[in-house]
Amino acid sequence: MKLLRYGPAGAERPALLEQDGTVRDLSEIIADVDATSVTPEVLSRIADRDPKTLPVVAQPGRIGPCIDGVGKFICIGLNYIDHARETGNEAPIEPVVFMKATSAIVGPDDDIVQPRGSTKLDWEVELGVVIGTKAKYVAEDRALAHVAGYFLANDVSERAFQTEGTGQWTKGKSCDTFGPIGPWLVTADEISDPQNLRLWLEVDGVRRQDGTTANMIFSVARIVSYLSGLMTLHPGDVIITGTPAGVGQGMKPPVYLRPGQIVTLGIEGLGEQHQTVVADAT
Amino acid sequence: MKLLRYGPAGAERPALLEQDGTVRDLSEIIADVDATSVTPEVLSRIADRDPKTLPVVAQPGRIGPCIDGVGKFICIGLNYIDHARETGNEAPIEPVVFMKATSAIVGPDDDIVQPRGSTKLDWEVELGVVIGTKAKYVAEDRALAHVAGYFLANDVSERAFQTEGTGQWTKGKSCDTFGPIGPWLVTADEISDPQNLRLWLEVDGVRRQDGTTANMIFSVARIVSYLSGLMTLHPGDVIITGTPAGVGQGMKPPVYLRPGQIVTLGIEGLGEQHQTVVADAT
Repeated sequence: MKLLRYGPAGAERPALLEQDGTVRDLSEIIADVDATSVTPEVLSRIADRDPKTLPVVAQPGRIGPCIDGVGKFICIGLNYIDHARETGNEAPIEPVVFMKATSAIVGPDDDIVQPRGSTKLDWEVELGVVIGTKAKYVAEDRALAHVAGYFLANDVSERAFQTEGTGQWTKGKSCDTFGPIGPWLVTADEISDPQNLRLWLEVDGVRRQDGTTANMIFSVARIVSYLSGLMTLHPGDVIITGTPAGVGQGMKPPVYLRPGQIVTLGIEGLGEQHQTVVADAT
Repeated sequence: MKLLRYGPAGAERPALLEQDGTVRDLSEIIADVDATSVTPEVLSRIADRDPKTLPVVAQPGRIGPCIDGVGKFICIGLNYIDHARETGNEAPIEPVVFMKATSAIVGPDDDIVQPRGSTKLDWEVELGVVIGTKAKYVAEDRALAHVAGYFLANDVSERAFQTEGTGQWTKGKSCDTFGPIGPWLVTADEISDPQNLRLWLEVDGVRRQDGTTANMIFSVARIVSYLSGLMTLHPGDVIITGTPAGVGQGMKPPVYLRPGQIVTLGIEGLGEQHQTVVADAT
């Protein structure tokens, strides 16, 4: 299934996208797409319902983040060897773990706001994972059973904030609007192999990233297992799994985003995002 | 006011601590101490109520984390010069920002569970801050107006996980039980100067940390202002503001926590915590 949230920011309603593109409102079954509705029980309840009996949303308008009420927004860094190299790093010997502020989360087509003082605004297309059941000390071969679904993310980054100060990356990853997620939460049954998905990103129509999740250093299963050895993962936690080569910082010379530019990205089966970069008007 | 949460983990009820030590249940006024109840409006509503009209809780039992539903758990590193030096670092020229997983939060007297593979389990007494109103691009001289209150925290840390791997600290800060907060959320009106509070920590009765918030490099006001320039702070977000000298990692040779040890800590006006270190039994 493809779940989504439509409507104004903060007042989104849950919906289902049918194969023919029809959007059906899910409010009769769930209050929202959130931690309470990504469990196997609730996903089954949605799947058991004949979508033709749900109200059609003729004009969904804005699409919101594909899940609300995210508990933890965990990120894996340098998880593609070509991206590690382009940023001057070696392949990590264990997953690099950092966090984005959950307040950075926005819809897939919302503007990217360049914060005050930003000079090195960059892009990163990433495969996102939604946890559906509590996971602690889970073996790698059982890890995918805890995944409710997948989504497309742009791990928007400010490289000066991230790397030129104190060494801790959170700062350059957590600004408002730095976490577009969606358009859809695609349930795990629709993704036969998360390690075989094309992902790409364009800036003003120029292809900058063009990769495949086959090139991840640590697979989704390995990441979920590894994280579950450090902390309990709960339903509604999300993990973004790193980006392939082609970020602005890796170009020679580096190229960064400017207000007015358009960022477009996608992952096979997970939809597309379209963002306009705007200056901070506050 | 001193707000607290009592009862079994996950089923805590909100309460008020009177000056004479009487605990009064707040369920008639608020459902919980959380993001919705730390706003100035709700805090005023609680303050306006004569506590003598609220039910006495004769046996509160376990005390839970002093606030539930934390959005962001932001941490400031190396914010006392003596602690920066003992860990081999210089004083930072800007705040070091990282995050703890919100799933690490536990009550003030809950056990600290040493996770599998941990060899360097350490302690850090810290002053915590609860945000009460939305803050974005707030000047330093207006920043404290956004603070709902203060609390005591132990920023429990696993130094090998934190510093011997990839350079990103989140891993060594986010294990389950690594975030004891409380016993109380003390509203800001009771703390005349957050930069003049004694804070201390003992292991098995031996004093290890003994400092004052007067020695912070970046004040609470500066930290709130700085963070608000990076991201919107929302009601219910918490910030812990760094630890003074005396952590296990800083001893020569380093000394770390072992199962069976007792950690006791406190901050003037904010109460005490008492934790037993236990091995991970799972």
